Amino acid sequence: MTNRSPFLLVLPLVVCACATTAPRFPSGAVVDMTYPFDEQTIYWPTEAGFQLKKEAYGHTPQGYFYAANSFSSAEHGGTHFDAPIHFAEGHPSVDQIPLEKLMGEAVLIDVTRQCAANPDYQVTQEDFAAWEKEHGRIPDGAIVLLRTGYGARWPDRKSYLGTEERGAEAVAKLHFPGLHPETARWLVGNRSIKAIGLDTASIDYGQSTLFESHQVLFAHDIPAFENVANLDRLPAKGFAVIAFPMKIKGGSGGPLRIAAVLGQGS
Amino acid sequence: MTNRSPFLLVLPLVVCACATTAPRFPSGAVVDMTYPFDEQTIYWPTEAGFQLKKEAYGHTPQGYFYAANSFSSAEHGGTHFDAPIHFAEGHPSVDQIPLEKLMGEAVLIDVTRQCAANPDYQVTQEDFAAWEKEHGRIPDGAIVLLRTGYGARWPDRKSYLGTEERGAEAVAKLHFPGLHPETARWLVGNRSIKAIGLDTASIDYGQSTLFESHQVLFAHDIPAFENVANLDRLPAKGFAVIAFPMKIKGGSGGPLRIAAVLGQGS
Repeated sequence: MTNRSPFLLVLPLVVCACATTAPRFPSGAVVDMTYPFDEQTIYWPTEAGFQLKKEAYGHTPQGYFYAANSFSSAEHGGTHFDAPIHFAEGHPSVDQIPLEKLMGEAVLIDVTRQCAANPDYQVTQEDFAAWEKEHGRIPDGAIVLLRTGYGARWPDRKSYLGTEERGAEAVAKLHFPGLHPETARWLVGNRSIKAIGLDTASIDYGQSTLFESHQVLFAHDIPAFENVANLDRLPAKGFAVIAFPMKIKGGSGGPLRIAAVLGQGS
Repeated sequence: MTNRSPFLLVLPLVVCACATTAPRFPSGAVVDMTYPFDEQTIYWPTEAGFQLKKEAYGHTPQGYFYAANSFSSAEHGGTHFDAPIHFAEGHPSVDQIPLEKLMGEAVLIDVTRQCAANPDYQVTQEDFAAWEKEHGRIPDGAIVLLRTGYGARWPDRKSYLGTEERGAEAVAKLHFPGLHPETARWLVGNRSIKAIGLDTASIDYGQSTLFESHQVLFAHDIPAFENVANLDRLPAKGFAVIAFPMKIKGGSGGPLRIAAVLGQGS
């Protein structure tokens, strides 16, 4: 029995290996990265904000309890999705983005330190290079999240946006970090990412007037997630993102429900 | 070397087994089970429907293209989520359901044949028993989808709802299948499911006046997905569902983006 016992010992492990190669839906911890929509939800200074109307709440004549509401909103407010058509004529609307593009492996680039010192900070190619030096090249098909640290300021408009004023005149007073247009150009030319998101109100920084990072990314059909919550709970890599926007036909964007699943292998 | 070569042969497989046990985000085919929100989207006869307002579309004075809209909607229309508070006082609103409850292994119970013969069909415990006889007991924590076949009728209101009339008087003319309240009672008492969904406008059938299946399920904090699309593309089991609703604070429900990932092991 000299040369048989090892086989018998190891065989169950091999069977187990086959079983685990059948994919199993991930069971890692889930981080909900979505702010609720309510009267505090931050919208652009030119927008009215989220409005909920209570249509029914209480016991009906038939005896059962019933609650229902209606609501109105701009597409771009709170935790939301920017579709390419938002800034790129002829490019996909929110309903035209396949969900495969909005799920999968993700990375987090933390620029909290840089942004703490400068509310007008724009994420540089060097920030990406520093991440890659430590963690390796951003994988093809990754979803990239930028953590500016501004999530800690939500829902204080003055601190989060740089101004609590409303209306068209307030736009020039916006101060918050974003992605530098040069970095956006480098990204679309040199990496193959599915989407990008961050914890500020816009992928372009508050002082932007031409929204060039939007233009560059959307011309390459890379959508953006804005006002993403809870980025402080994520590691630099080893997690997956699921980002499901409301399916508005022809929409330039819309409310987004976005979550991370931790402990995902790459 | 008689008793060493088997070890050497098998070792790489064992290493491979360890690597695959590190979870990997699923890469199976994705089925989007969401209808777009547009002017055709079916709402309850008492509701106004989805309304999109074009706020901007075209080239700005600064030279770049820009498109943005606003919208209004009832919480319960199109592919949507029913939170327990919709029919169960003191129970969770849509923003209070952890996303873990809305992701994972799912099963599909097909009652297309029964519903083709009877627009007032209510899914029975026998339908569940027949599924379990063929596929095994519904796993704890599964998401259950009921396929009535009514998805093929969308977006024809007359065929899908039983009436194309609007207003309070039209409600008595609704005819479409749902889950029988007795089956709902059996389900909450005897199986441990996360959520339930179907391809009609309501988990209670069209002729319901007391919405008892809603009451029973929601009293047990089992939310419902309604007007779910593309159930004809799913197998009976071996897939996962991700159902992410809009995070309306205190909402009784809301727009839902729901997808299946095929080829998931159980």
